[in-house]
Amino acid sequence: MILDKINSPKDLQKLSNDEMKELAQEMRKLIIKKVNETGGHMGPNLGIVEATIAIHKVFNSPIDKIVFDVSHQCYPHKMLTGRKEGFINPSKYYLFTGYTAPEESEHDIFKIGHTSTSISLAAGLAKARDLKNEKGNIIALIGDGSLSGGEAFEGLDNAATLTSNIIIIVNDNDMSIAENEGGLYKNLKLLRETKGKAELNFFKSLGFEYLYVEEGNSIEKLIETFEKVKDTNHPTVIHIKTLKGCGLKEAEENKEMFHWIVPHALDNFYKTPAAEKENYTNITTNYILNEAKKDPSIVAITPATPGVCGFNKHFRETLKNQYIDVGIAEEHAIAFASGLAKNGAKPILAVMSSFIQRAYDQISQDLCLNNSPATILVYWSGLSNADATHLTCFDIPLLSNIPNLVYLAPTNKEEYLAMLDWSVKQNQYSTAIRVPNIELVSTGIDDKTDYSILNKYKIEQNGEEIAILGLGNFLPLAFKTAKKIEENLNIKPTVINPRFITGLDIELLNKLKENHKLIITLEDGILSGGFGEKIASFYGPSDIKVLNYGGKKEFTDRISIEKIYQNCRLDENLILQDINSIINLCNA
Amino acid sequence: MILDKINSPKDLQKLSNDEMKELAQEMRKLIIKKVNETGGHMGPNLGIVEATIAIHKVFNSPIDKIVFDVSHQCYPHKMLTGRKEGFINPSKYYLFTGYTAPEESEHDIFKIGHTSTSISLAAGLAKARDLKNEKGNIIALIGDGSLSGGEAFEGLDNAATLTSNIIIIVNDNDMSIAENEGGLYKNLKLLRETKGKAELNFFKSLGFEYLYVEEGNSIEKLIETFEKVKDTNHPTVIHIKTLKGCGLKEAEENKEMFHWIVPHALDNFYKTPAAEKENYTNITTNYILNEAKKDPSIVAITPATPGVCGFNKHFRETLKNQYIDVGIAEEHAIAFASGLAKNGAKPILAVMSSFIQRAYDQISQDLCLNNSPATILVYWSGLSNADATHLTCFDIPLLSNIPNLVYLAPTNKEEYLAMLDWSVKQNQYSTAIRVPNIELVSTGIDDKTDYSILNKYKIEQNGEEIAILGLGNFLPLAFKTAKKIEENLNIKPTVINPRFITGLDIELLNKLKENHKLIITLEDGILSGGFGEKIASFYGPSDIKVLNYGGKKEFTDRISIEKIYQNCRLDENLILQDINSIINLCNA
Repeated sequence: MILDKINSPKDLQKLSNDEMKELAQEMRKLIIKKVNETGGHMGPNLGIVEATIAIHKVFNSPIDKIVFDVSHQCYPHKMLTGRKEGFINPSKYYLFTGYTAPEESEHDIFKIGHTSTSISLAAGLAKARDLKNEKGNIIALIGDGSLSGGEAFEGLDNAATLTSNIIIIVNDNDMSIAENEGGLYKNLKLLRETKGKAELNFFKSLGFEYLYVEEGNSIEKLIETFEKVKDTNHPTVIHIKTLKGCGLKEAEENKEMFHWIVPHALDNFYKTPAAEKENYTNITTNYILNEAKKDPSIVAITPATPGVCGFNKHFRETLKNQYIDVGIAEEHAIAFASGLAKNGAKPILAVMSSFIQRAYDQISQDLCLNNSPATILVYWSGLSNADATHLTCFDIPLLSNIPNLVYLAPTNKEEYLAMLDWSVKQNQYSTAIRVPNIELVSTGIDDKTDYSILNKYKIEQNGEEIAILGLGNFLPLAFKTAKKIEENLNIKPTVINPRFITGLDIELLNKLKENHKLIITLEDGILSGGFGEKIASFYGPSDIKVLNYGGKKEFTDRISIEKIYQNCRLDENLILQDINSIINLCNA
Repeated sequence: MILDKINSPKDLQKLSNDEMKELAQEMRKLIIKKVNETGGHMGPNLGIVEATIAIHKVFNSPIDKIVFDVSHQCYPHKMLTGRKEGFINPSKYYLFTGYTAPEESEHDIFKIGHTSTSISLAAGLAKARDLKNEKGNIIALIGDGSLSGGEAFEGLDNAATLTSNIIIIVNDNDMSIAENEGGLYKNLKLLRETKGKAELNFFKSLGFEYLYVEEGNSIEKLIETFEKVKDTNHPTVIHIKTLKGCGLKEAEENKEMFHWIVPHALDNFYKTPAAEKENYTNITTNYILNEAKKDPSIVAITPATPGVCGFNKHFRETLKNQYIDVGIAEEHAIAFASGLAKNGAKPILAVMSSFIQRAYDQISQDLCLNNSPATILVYWSGLSNADATHLTCFDIPLLSNIPNLVYLAPTNKEEYLAMLDWSVKQNQYSTAIRVPNIELVSTGIDDKTDYSILNKYKIEQNGEEIAILGLGNFLPLAFKTAKKIEENLNIKPTVINPRFITGLDIELLNKLKENHKLIITLEDGILSGGFGEKIASFYGPSDIKVLNYGGKKEFTDRISIEKIYQNCRLDENLILQDINSIINLCNA
């Protein structure tokens, strides 16, 4: 293999054009094999193999610095910068992260996993270079999809004012995760169709020198263009047209499906998928489809991640103009939903916990300050074994300290559907629902609760001495802990399902004082700024003791969930130990 | 006065062009008199008088809906929509807010005070109109300065895809609060210079129909153009050139100074300003100027609010390329600072508490996940009598629950300068400093603390039974409370200055258990998700009682600070009452 000879980007210098072409094919095969095995980003990496080789051939990393936007597309870069074993050797498939990671290599400048950040980060690198009177190229590689994010525009607008070297490579594969949406994409299309010659040019309008590369999967053409702009002294955009999924027929033809895949998705591509069990995703889409038929003002919104919430082809085609993908634009998504709600429509915005944090100010100012009755569905929330860039454990502190918002934590199918239905149909509150991130459980009994009476917790089991508040995903742990306590301490604890994350049930909490001495809170997210601390504060002046359980304030990075639970004592046995040590303390 | 006849926009229909011109002059005079008296936004409102008259002449509010970006410029609108008394009658000067406020009038759709939101909000209104099969124009009025904000771009990109009426009026006065920065502004300049004829057109590149009005302070010309696009069936941008401060020589010539003024700024304009006392703003600029001379990698950054932090003309001219105004672009500002820090420069970013919330994800992902050693100075933090749109009491929950960040709360000059100096010169941590928002106090003794030893609280007074943690601005209240307790209960409390908002001093907190029964926390911000709740959680399992004091989770709106303190029991007498009730409880 030619790749055998490549241990750092320098080794590319020895290769002929033909050898580089062969190298690209080797890399492509390894990516397909590895990603099919482990899951991960398939399409973005297959499309960028040639550009990565060309970048490392022309530029001198790490003196020249490359920032990979969202770093979905950094696998080829990893293969060329000392980490090829992670792609060749199945026993090392999990050795490296799927994102740029400075701890792995000097060729990775930042830890990146959210989109639209590369231009601003690169502009900072460039300005620091200038202040220190140093030399070197600063390159941001950004996909067309990421350009719709506001941060990318702020970066472009500012990078254009630099009076020194910054090179922005726009990797245009005509796709975001899903189809691109937005006026900008008409301009990119026009530029592709005119081979970069159209007068109307978004990048030029901002002041960039602009170059277009029609054959963005041709190493030679890319090298030729990169050589032209190397060491340039002003801001430049190189717009390269690439093929997402290049070299894998299934991925080329099903770009959205192969953007990011689960393990063995390729192996299973031609098999008939097993019938899907009922889960929180499909009961949501069924609810929306059903209600949207009855009410034309219901509208489902996604900020470029329709796959996350089951907004599939059938869903989109059925809803027609009642479905909107706003592109990677979480800020717009929230303000847009607020406008919709204010004018009498019923927006339902589905967003991942990790990305809701891109719109804090919009949730506060555009939405909640205006009490616009939109519904936000927060998906994939909770502690997880995810990459540090994609943690989903910060949404409770983020959302629950914003005034006016009603943030709900359902614990079973019927409760979830009742909350969703209430939320969509009421017009008083801005609401968010933490879609359960556990296997669906059904009580079989319709939930008739009137959720417009805010902050009423539900007693799931009456007991005494100890009360356990199990929020959302952690209600099952509350029951397990109760059982453990009963078995060991001969106390039957009270078990409470708070349901409302954003408010205290003062009446209930006061009543608990009558026959309880210890309150335990469990939440599936970081403790810091979250739910449990508010309970502790409430009982602060009283004799009641409080134990808060939840995640630590830290960026964990692919730590197993078992390990995280252990570290945070989120386990009925460890909680029992803690209770015993308090009881001993009380008796001492 | 012609204004006497105007009680709603409909009354404009009866006016001739000459009468409208006269009306504009009447309105302008009233604005100048009122704003000079009360303080407020002068320049933006003087520039938009004619456009507001023309909008209300042509469009049919509230059927047609107008969204005012940032709503700095809504005074003329208020005067035409039933609220002229707030400008005519000095006794009613404070009756209406300085921003759009739906509770005041059906002509105000949203409560708005942060920039760059109008296009997304308007797009939502437009889409709801379409879903409901209704008619009517949706108009967003946005200043050129606000266009640099990412949310505005996301809005433009999406609004361009609507297949129905949306009219975006770009009010181009060639100024943000300060000078505009960014590539976009070169394009606006080109468009102004070519009277909208240039081929290179940012708005057209996104797909908008584009119209240019050279005389944006001519009611006739504006009406002519608005008539053309009224009831149009596609997205349109009308670019109007206006004069910021129009009609007030001082404001026309000093646009930045007269953007927003304090009361009587106009009266005092020609007086020699009194020599400025030492305050946290000028000791900061002095520190930066001094250090920047020694270290060319130090760079001061503002996201378009240089006035807030004393980055005045002298400061900017002295620092030259070590000063950067990135424009209204908080997301970029943070990522840019991260890039600067990562490449060895020393960025100091000054930002208002109310606007730091526009960059949560960037602080988390771009900055703290990467441990980039940038310094963020958070200005104007704390509970305040501000408008609901500009509250400054959310920064502690926002910032202090982000992993890796070190957020410091200094309490006097020497402590602040020591923290600032440590922060700028260290290279391990992303840091933020809550610049004290109280009168400067000086100990006269240099602070030699090594702040790299994190989370060490300072005991300011040794005592027993009760310990008071007075965070930042509220250390003086801690001392007052301690004195009150000593006088009334004959207990000398311990007084603690936590200094670190982002971590617990476990050793100290444990030691307090030895001879304390009650811990009191005081913080100048909302309690929810803040500092005190973490202390309550820490002591939850122990016998120690905790009382947390801080603001409530609510959007207060121009409530006097005395009232807020009273409501939150932030007063030594009320705290004493609470202590007494607990002691009684304990003894009962």
